[in-house]
Amino acid sequence: MSWQPNRRSDNTLQQQIVQWITANVERGDWAAGTKLPTQRQLAMQFDVNRSTVQQALEELKAMGILEAKVGSGVYVTHNSWHALIQQTQPNWQTYIETSIHKPNYHTIQLINEYEQRDDVIRLGTGELAPCLLPTKEIEASLRELTFQSKALGYSSPQGNDHLRKAICKYVQKRGITAEPQNVCIVSGALQALQLIAVGLLEQGSIVFQEPTSYLNSVHPFQSVGMQMISIDRDEQLAQTLTQRKRKKQAVFYAIPTLHNPTGHVWTGREKEQLYEACQASRIPIIEDDVYHELLFEETSPPIKAMDNSGQVLYIGSVSKTLSPGLRIGWLIGPTTVIERLADIKMQTDYGSSAISQEIVLHWLQSGKYEKHLAGLRQQLQERADFTEQLLMEKFTEVANWSKPKGGFYIWLKFHEPLVDKDFFMKLLQQQILINPGYIYDPHDHHHIRLSYAYATFEELQEGLRILHECVVAAMGRKSK
Amino acid sequence: MSWQPNRRSDNTLQQQIVQWITANVERGDWAAGTKLPTQRQLAMQFDVNRSTVQQALEELKAMGILEAKVGSGVYVTHNSWHALIQQTQPNWQTYIETSIHKPNYHTIQLINEYEQRDDVIRLGTGELAPCLLPTKEIEASLRELTFQSKALGYSSPQGNDHLRKAICKYVQKRGITAEPQNVCIVSGALQALQLIAVGLLEQGSIVFQEPTSYLNSVHPFQSVGMQMISIDRDEQLAQTLTQRKRKKQAVFYAIPTLHNPTGHVWTGREKEQLYEACQASRIPIIEDDVYHELLFEETSPPIKAMDNSGQVLYIGSVSKTLSPGLRIGWLIGPTTVIERLADIKMQTDYGSSAISQEIVLHWLQSGKYEKHLAGLRQQLQERADFTEQLLMEKFTEVANWSKPKGGFYIWLKFHEPLVDKDFFMKLLQQQILINPGYIYDPHDHHHIRLSYAYATFEELQEGLRILHECVVAAMGRKSK
Repeated sequence: MSWQPNRRSDNTLQQQIVQWITANVERGDWAAGTKLPTQRQLAMQFDVNRSTVQQALEELKAMGILEAKVGSGVYVTHNSWHALIQQTQPNWQTYIETSIHKPNYHTIQLINEYEQRDDVIRLGTGELAPCLLPTKEIEASLRELTFQSKALGYSSPQGNDHLRKAICKYVQKRGITAEPQNVCIVSGALQALQLIAVGLLEQGSIVFQEPTSYLNSVHPFQSVGMQMISIDRDEQLAQTLTQRKRKKQAVFYAIPTLHNPTGHVWTGREKEQLYEACQASRIPIIEDDVYHELLFEETSPPIKAMDNSGQVLYIGSVSKTLSPGLRIGWLIGPTTVIERLADIKMQTDYGSSAISQEIVLHWLQSGKYEKHLAGLRQQLQERADFTEQLLMEKFTEVANWSKPKGGFYIWLKFHEPLVDKDFFMKLLQQQILINPGYIYDPHDHHHIRLSYAYATFEELQEGLRILHECVVAAMGRKSK
Repeated sequence: MSWQPNRRSDNTLQQQIVQWITANVERGDWAAGTKLPTQRQLAMQFDVNRSTVQQALEELKAMGILEAKVGSGVYVTHNSWHALIQQTQPNWQTYIETSIHKPNYHTIQLINEYEQRDDVIRLGTGELAPCLLPTKEIEASLRELTFQSKALGYSSPQGNDHLRKAICKYVQKRGITAEPQNVCIVSGALQALQLIAVGLLEQGSIVFQEPTSYLNSVHPFQSVGMQMISIDRDEQLAQTLTQRKRKKQAVFYAIPTLHNPTGHVWTGREKEQLYEACQASRIPIIEDDVYHELLFEETSPPIKAMDNSGQVLYIGSVSKTLSPGLRIGWLIGPTTVIERLADIKMQTDYGSSAISQEIVLHWLQSGKYEKHLAGLRQQLQERADFTEQLLMEKFTEVANWSKPKGGFYIWLKFHEPLVDKDFFMKLLQQQILINPGYIYDPHDHHHIRLSYAYATFEELQEGLRILHECVVAAMGRKSK
């Protein structure tokens, strides 16, 4: 949607807007039932006065192409087609509304949308800043790659053999013993969850998770009818799991190392407790370990390292460390499970990009990956220190937080429950994009996931200044 | 599964096999309920006599680790764990059996598996031969790529902007008018179908298809509860569609150009008829157009070119032309629909490989792609001619076929209905891999999809010789 009216046209701005919207509806591009952006947004896009937009919309309503729904907005009418030409088109809006997969939360759609813009300060992004990505080094490594003649064909179901071997060697350093047949290459950790959701769980199965969870911000399980149960880990865990599982199938989803979004790192004892509790209740564990390379200090081995009964499905990825654009991750588990999930991956997308797989193989084998990680950890540590310094200067009276142990995030807790959609939108109007806590726990209005991995130092400074203003203003509103 | 016993070990071969299988079960790698390969297959893998395998399996049965089920095979016992150590593991086999997604047909699993082997002649493969892939040219183009700093981050929901613009320009030559907001980059055509299945259709929706259909060999719709209805296109089509659709939502899936597997090319009139019939019954069309670049002669524009009401979802891809390993395709449709599907793609895998997208962009923009296509068509034409020549020499008395108009396939029809699983397996034993017609139409035992795109000329010759022998043998068995 980058169109703008032409100021040198013979037609008025209003006429041009009416024609443009009509054309969008006419060629079926804006289907019946599509909700239009707000007048404010349209005025911004078209770079015209809001009154011009208002008049254009009135004209379109009079033509029967648009209709207003009180308190909700302006929509393309369901009979807009009759207003235009005597033709029918599929009722796409109904198709969309009744289909299986849930849409992203509106807040997350806005985050996805605004993350594309250059004029926004991204304070919550789960992604390395462009300057932290080894773009030049990846370009250079492309110049070294040579492919065997079969490399660019369809992949084998579990992915590139050499890459799977290299991954086995790599995870051995984390204490994990795996053979290539225990590995399935996936297009990132999210796809691994998707495959587990449709390939291992019957409908209505239970997914146990911590109360604050990355899984609440995506829907791999919910969208296929699984039931999410948030659970506190405590002494009674085994008993609680067995009780709440009832007769259903279940899995436990955990991020024991640099938890997203809280940044929490489990102790070795905590990992053991979960493993034992899940073993006692025969519940498999999904261990999401995509941040571990970014630990500032050594920690205990992952749960998978203590797994001697094929109970843990382990997920790794290069998205948080090397490049999310490669779309390469891995899933490690019993052969029986891996073969099943690879079979479904073949039915889903016929495998991950062969070129991306070759690049990751090259980075693992050449030692470039671990060298890159060492430098990256240092840069993240500097950014974490800088950000904490800013917080110490301004935020001690309104919020508290734990010192980050690695990764991207500070889980910033405001003393007041002021983080709601309104707060999110107010910051967005000032071109500050945050990841509010409520996308990870719907009941949480105290937290934001503050990322020091993406914004520049200047942006962090400016962004936190504006955030502070908004916090103070919100506290003022609350206290009135 | 590449392990073999060590002939210089102090342990007998049988002992080593017993130990190896025990270890697989012990570490949970072969879950309870896992079916073992046949004795013949194991003997081949281990490079030992079948009697050695048999004795090892007997020993394992006596230990309670394996059990035989009459007429079905040998399985890991459900209490194998108790036989080994006093521990429990998740019952993975039950998880798998009760989960949502259907497994691939066994024939297709075998095809996926045997396609990885170098000692098999692939007579049915839907993939270009390694020598037809521009591997060296892709390597060379990697040396020319430079990335902007954001290129290796997470993609925008609809994919690389520049690539979407280049695709709009590219499809314009096919008569399709599209803007970048009408395009979503996908990881191949199959993913496009998957997104449509979960993002546009309510459970129980109807997918109309031709009786012989690629969709019967994959399950993007079936696996999420859609109902497949095969339909013959005729004068009454609009009426039939309306009747059979009843009150349900529906789509029509079509491959009007170089149909997979039949190779059929629709006339302009046939395309119009489908478009009109679907318009009258308000049924959207999915037009799968991934083979059109491989037409030996010009043909009429695609259905999408006549679409003035946003009714056609158009799918293109580079998998059949440039490299399946890139995993890049595109979906073109109304903005409303594309935004929805991009939102789901973000929830599924966060976008396609950024590097693969950059490569395809480079090939489209530089003109390399169209230059490559011209050469490729010529090579496929030569292969088609060669293969037809072989067929003329040997097969005229047992089969008939149409002259291929492009693409990869000859839809070879045997006079007798001899193509069954047994026929497939008999050929496989002779290291000949075919795509039997029954994976595209369960009732079809007359056809195989013969591909001239993959095997070498020598392999085509040898493969067709053995195929002919098997056909004659099968006819002999039938006539007895």
